[in-house]
Amino acid sequence: MNNVYFDNAATTPMRDEVIASMTEVMRKNYGNASSSHSFGRSSKSLIEQSRKTIAQYLNVSAGEIVFTSGGTEADNFVLQSAVKDLGVKHIVTSKIEHHAVLHTIDQIEKEYNITVSYVDVEANGDIDYKHLETLLQTEKKTLVSLMLINNEIGNILDIEHVTNLCKANNALFHSDAVQSIGHYEMDLQALQIDFLAASAHKFHGPKGVGFAFVRKNSGLQPLILGGEQERGLRAGTESVHNIIGMEVALKSAYANMNKETDFIKKLKDYFIDKIVKEIPEVTCNGESGNLDKSTYTLVNICLPIPPKKAAMLLFQLDLKGIACSKGSACQSGSSQNSHVLTEILNDTDLQKPSIRFSFSIYNTKEEVDYVIDVLKAFME
Amino acid sequence: MNNVYFDNAATTPMRDEVIASMTEVMRKNYGNASSSHSFGRSSKSLIEQSRKTIAQYLNVSAGEIVFTSGGTEADNFVLQSAVKDLGVKHIVTSKIEHHAVLHTIDQIEKEYNITVSYVDVEANGDIDYKHLETLLQTEKKTLVSLMLINNEIGNILDIEHVTNLCKANNALFHSDAVQSIGHYEMDLQALQIDFLAASAHKFHGPKGVGFAFVRKNSGLQPLILGGEQERGLRAGTESVHNIIGMEVALKSAYANMNKETDFIKKLKDYFIDKIVKEIPEVTCNGESGNLDKSTYTLVNICLPIPPKKAAMLLFQLDLKGIACSKGSACQSGSSQNSHVLTEILNDTDLQKPSIRFSFSIYNTKEEVDYVIDVLKAFME
Ligand SMILES: Cc1ncc(COP(=O)(O)O)c(C=O)c1O
Ligand SMILES: Cc1ncc(COP(=O)(O)O)c(C=O)c1O
Repeated sequence: MNNVYFDNAATTPMRDEVIASMTEVMRKNYGNASSSHSFGRSSKSLIEQSRKTIAQYLNVSAGEIVFTSGGTEADNFVLQSAVKDLGVKHIVTSKIEHHAVLHTIDQIEKEYNITVSYVDVEANGDIDYKHLETLLQTEKKTLVSLMLINNEIGNILDIEHVTNLCKANNALFHSDAVQSIGHYEMDLQALQIDFLAASAHKFHGPKGVGFAFVRKNSGLQPLILGGEQERGLRAGTESVHNIIGMEVALKSAYANMNKETDFIKKLKDYFIDKIVKEIPEVTCNGESGNLDKSTYTLVNICLPIPPKKAAMLLFQLDLKGIACSKGSACQSGSSQNSHVLTEILNDTDLQKPSIRFSFSIYNTKEEVDYVIDVLKAFME
Repeated sequence: MNNVYFDNAATTPMRDEVIASMTEVMRKNYGNASSSHSFGRSSKSLIEQSRKTIAQYLNVSAGEIVFTSGGTEADNFVLQSAVKDLGVKHIVTSKIEHHAVLHTIDQIEKEYNITVSYVDVEANGDIDYKHLETLLQTEKKTLVSLMLINNEIGNILDIEHVTNLCKANNALFHSDAVQSIGHYEMDLQALQIDFLAASAHKFHGPKGVGFAFVRKNSGLQPLILGGEQERGLRAGTESVHNIIGMEVALKSAYANMNKETDFIKKLKDYFIDKIVKEIPEVTCNGESGNLDKSTYTLVNICLPIPPKKAAMLLFQLDLKGIACSKGSACQSGSSQNSHVLTEILNDTDLQKPSIRFSFSIYNTKEEVDYVIDVLKAFME
């Protein structure tokens, strides 16, 4: 078997209808959405329709969706402006956030006079909600930034709990929902969330486009200045084809969500069942082995392989045509341990190789069989 | 006649080969360029090849090209970091720059303790080089930001003169070259320029991608933080298809530059000749009527129409299927005068409507005839 792509948390293959819609837009709708003539208006109406579609799925108003060049930009936009423009003096986050959040906060901390608090993380990868509550007992204007689904271990945040804590303590709440949007339905009207980041390429859309949800009258100011695009919140000629691709991808995701969730869940279940049978010493990191407490899209396993041999593991899997990952894609080339696993594993387990397998509708049980066979053979 | 697109300075239709290459990449190369497995490496090698191609055309090294989400982001990246990270205390620019530069500088001025000087602009739209020289007589660390080709009036900067002045006075030099790259050859090795911004959709590439040229060891730091993409200078999953589209567009531009420049130049020449004959009271704004002193891609004309009637002009042209622009696309919807024309026109001329017509290889003489007929009929 060749080309087994089990790295869907890093990025997903694009759906055919997404590519088709983008190709058509590139051919036909070349107007600049800011131009007032008919070519411009037709591009404008395409992106405003996309905005409406996306807003409807999330049960917010269209004006609260700001298109960006991806999840990373959306995180930067929210975090940088919260401190610069909203007067936030205290950021509460965790050490297991994505680097788009962590490195941005590091930079803000250097540049501005703010305090950053890291909420404790339990051994299972959940944040310590009691500790969060304690951290919120402050007079300082506070922003909480916690991701909805962890991209390495799949843990799902108790977002209602967090929004309630934030509300009770007058804190703003931003959530990096890059691993959730397009995989789980969300009602942002019901949730008292202020900001959220999403990225199209995680749900079979194009790379280089995403959006920020920015609650109305938030006061957020643009990170990128220039023209009046995105109601003044994000300058730059809109990437019409990318935005339409994101809309179509989200439409397909919603239209098929029950069926596809079910399919992928069963695949993950099958993977866990089988690997536990075949390699009994395997453990699942975080809550990723628990189908109720983690996303159905990924599992992160710790393999009982001595360090020396482990060094060859990813290389061997790659040779066998299997794509998976040590941590997030951005660190997959490095020899360092994942910053997420470093937070939650004990020293013994950190010595062993951990691998994230992440699934999509394009995967099959046969691929799972093949991967587990290869893993078993490697260990022998 | 219908669909006469004379707004190529706002954005250009995409070339077929650009769309084809992007569609193929979207189908086949879905790996995340930061992933270390084969899917990731193949995306990585595509974008590194694009970087090399682009760097070769500009005669710089690949490491000096930083991919961004467009020209606006490239301008923001350079300007914001120059002040934040390079210790620039004085920015010299002009009032006729693009808003991606002007609004960014406004924001920086509010936020940091810097001085902004605006170099005088002559009635012909050229900057006053003597005044620039005076402004550079300072002990403060200075960055000059002047665009290479003005997007409204087409004036071409004497870039060698400016680089020499900057060098002699120890100032950094950034040029927004969004209207030049892909239309004119440039040797950035020969020119002592430090930073440059470019955007693919201005040369028949995709919207939502561009690049900054950042001279080696400049010390620039990222605007968008997160993963280690772009050698740490721009975080976010790379938009592989957009980058490849930009590369293919630039390749086609270079392969056909002489022939296409010649074709478009003749079209502009034809337009000017004919309109001056048909509507003798017309004048060209800036140097846009002078084929040696302005870009061959656009002309900006001032029409002898009384204000009352003028209000209907763009609307009428649109009804007749003609796309053109009052100023840049970002302000085309507004009723305000162009900030560029406001700087250079006298009050009488400012009362009259000015329109920018901008051309590409996809235009024809018949379209020019049609547009001038429509203009004439409107004036009668
Ligand atoms: C001179 C100039 N600079 C910057 C930009 C902005 O680039 P982008 O459209 O890629 O954001 C434009 C066009 O919109 C432009 O004409
Ligand atoms: C949780 C999380 N946040 C942010 C990002 C960054 O988004 P993007 O790839 O669109 O820059 C990613 C993936 O790369 C992610 O998994």
